[in-house]
Amino acid sequence: MSVLTLADVYHARCRLEGRAYRSPLIESASLSALARTPVYLKLETVQPTGSFKLRGATNALARLAEQGCKRVVTASTGNHGRAVAYAARALGIETTVCMSSLVPGNKVEAVRALGARAHIVGKSQDDAEAEALRMTREEGFAYVPPFDHLDVIAGQATLGLEILEALPDVANIVVPLSGGGLFAGVAFAAKHISPAVRLTGVSMERGAAMHASLEAGKPVLVDERETLADSLGGGIGLENRYTFALTRELIDDVILLDEASIARGVVHAYRHERLVVEGAAAVGIAALLDGALRDTLQEDSLQRGPLVLIVTGANIDIDQHRRVINEALGNKARSDGAASNDA
Amino acid sequence: MSVLTLADVYHARCRLEGRAYRSPLIESASLSALARTPVYLKLETVQPTGSFKLRGATNALARLAEQGCKRVVTASTGNHGRAVAYAARALGIETTVCMSSLVPGNKVEAVRALGARAHIVGKSQDDAEAEALRMTREEGFAYVPPFDHLDVIAGQATLGLEILEALPDVANIVVPLSGGGLFAGVAFAAKHISPAVRLTGVSMERGAAMHASLEAGKPVLVDERETLADSLGGGIGLENRYTFALTRELIDDVILLDEASIARGVVHAYRHERLVVEGAAAVGIAALLDGALRDTLQEDSLQRGPLVLIVTGANIDIDQHRRVINEALGNKARSDGAASNDA
Repeated sequence: MSVLTLADVYHARCRLEGRAYRSPLIESASLSALARTPVYLKLETVQPTGSFKLRGATNALARLAEQGCKRVVTASTGNHGRAVAYAARALGIETTVCMSSLVPGNKVEAVRALGARAHIVGKSQDDAEAEALRMTREEGFAYVPPFDHLDVIAGQATLGLEILEALPDVANIVVPLSGGGLFAGVAFAAKHISPAVRLTGVSMERGAAMHASLEAGKPVLVDERETLADSLGGGIGLENRYTFALTRELIDDVILLDEASIARGVVHAYRHERLVVEGAAAVGIAALLDGALRDTLQEDSLQRGPLVLIVTGANIDIDQHRRVINEALGNKARSDGAASNDA
Repeated sequence: MSVLTLADVYHARCRLEGRAYRSPLIESASLSALARTPVYLKLETVQPTGSFKLRGATNALARLAEQGCKRVVTASTGNHGRAVAYAARALGIETTVCMSSLVPGNKVEAVRALGARAHIVGKSQDDAEAEALRMTREEGFAYVPPFDHLDVIAGQATLGLEILEALPDVANIVVPLSGGGLFAGVAFAAKHISPAVRLTGVSMERGAAMHASLEAGKPVLVDERETLADSLGGGIGLENRYTFALTRELIDDVILLDEASIARGVVHAYRHERLVVEGAAAVGIAALLDGALRDTLQEDSLQRGPLVLIVTGANIDIDQHRRVINEALGNKARSDGAASNDA
């Protein structure tokens, strides 16, 4: 763990002050009743860009700004790209987002709405990434990787600090698991402050790159497949420098979920927590609902203290969200009592 | 204004510490673009009981607890009743909620889930209220009114403190207007800290009791009618002691909205802010969307600084919420670009 120190995390928190929120940690009555232990949701859905990614991007960019950086480039049009564009603008850094000509117009507009330049190049995401790396090598742009970077990890780790400060007796933290930047950061901070905290990572069955890599004992490639938890897709990089080793060292359990379970998590968040969340953000709730979490954790671990589920973001296509809730709850919205807890 | 002091509000804040959240204040990109000034949403939707009512109830009950109170009674099964039950449990006070035999089973269960005793009595809300008052007079229960009480107003006023601390240059605050407890509290705190802040109250056209009373120059009765903003319904009390006078003194503008406008506010919150909000909580957003706010405020007032909309709660019947969004967005969820801002 020596590559990172807790002091790095506290420094990251200073850089995030006024730029990303200390997010609410709210107790869920419905999930607490189910788990028979207090269950809290850490709501990164309220971050200005709609996901936790703003933490890591802000920390990394603030450090770059301290070094005089004026221009960054990324090839992400997802949560990381939004976070980079938003954080860069706040710091007075120009952002260019490389995108292929296949990226839909509304995503191009979303990038521009964040004040970034949309640089349309090539016909695939690979082309866009190659151009971003070329600009980094040849034109002096800075590049902030989405997870495998110590400043990014330290930024995500501020989430762990906030959880431990609010709930010093937390027993379990459940983290959506993808490239491992969030997991490594939260686990690092949490276990440094309270070594007995148990850390569980949750991925979708379809293309869980970190899980496959942990099984193989080294970073491996997996086929990327369509999933409701699309923010968890993508590889961890065969040349992974930090997140694989940190995750391997710090993780206690991994849970994989099928698509139906993830959808139930999204529906439960809407119906019982009045939250609109993306699939990737619902995996903790889903793992609790479908019994996977109880099966994985020992009952005494669940009962030892509060459980925290990190609800990572709200950036779901709103029509996809409506499809998911309408499919689950029936197309004709009717009052069936159970759903009705306005009082 | 001498009935209340700013010190009362700071005392209230101390009592709320650890019992109600300092809620997030997030900038809305879509609404800022529309208003051509930064627009912030104050998200009381994250409060443990799903609405701002927890602030006033917590302050009032904490003061009662300091005086040795052990039992409270209420006849509200709405946001106020939930807040009283939740705050009382946290303070070790027993709560009885009087309800008529016509109250649906799910509402009775919701009351019990908060640890309160459900006392079924009579056949109407009036019967339930009469019983609550009888228990107060004859059995030594304490009663916390929903808005017309100085401790309740001071509790709601903590919202005003938080807004001014986060945005000292705020120019306009828009507050859902019903009995006036929230309005009076927020306006009191805001104008004491920054006298130039403009305070706008927004109600539904159907049964706006405070607006009718302000027009008449004294508290008057209005017919209660069905509305999507049901939390704003009800009278202000012909014997109103505090909120009418405070509101009359502190209010700059009143806006009334029709049902279609309120629904548009609920839909916008879902579609563009990824928020599930009740009708009463959407009236600020609705007033901005439908032009009423721009018509009411002078353009220079809008441009003078940030605008804050208080999003008061999330306690909408979830099937009603689905009906509203499906009616607006079409029953077949399809991808039409504009709605899709996952990136």
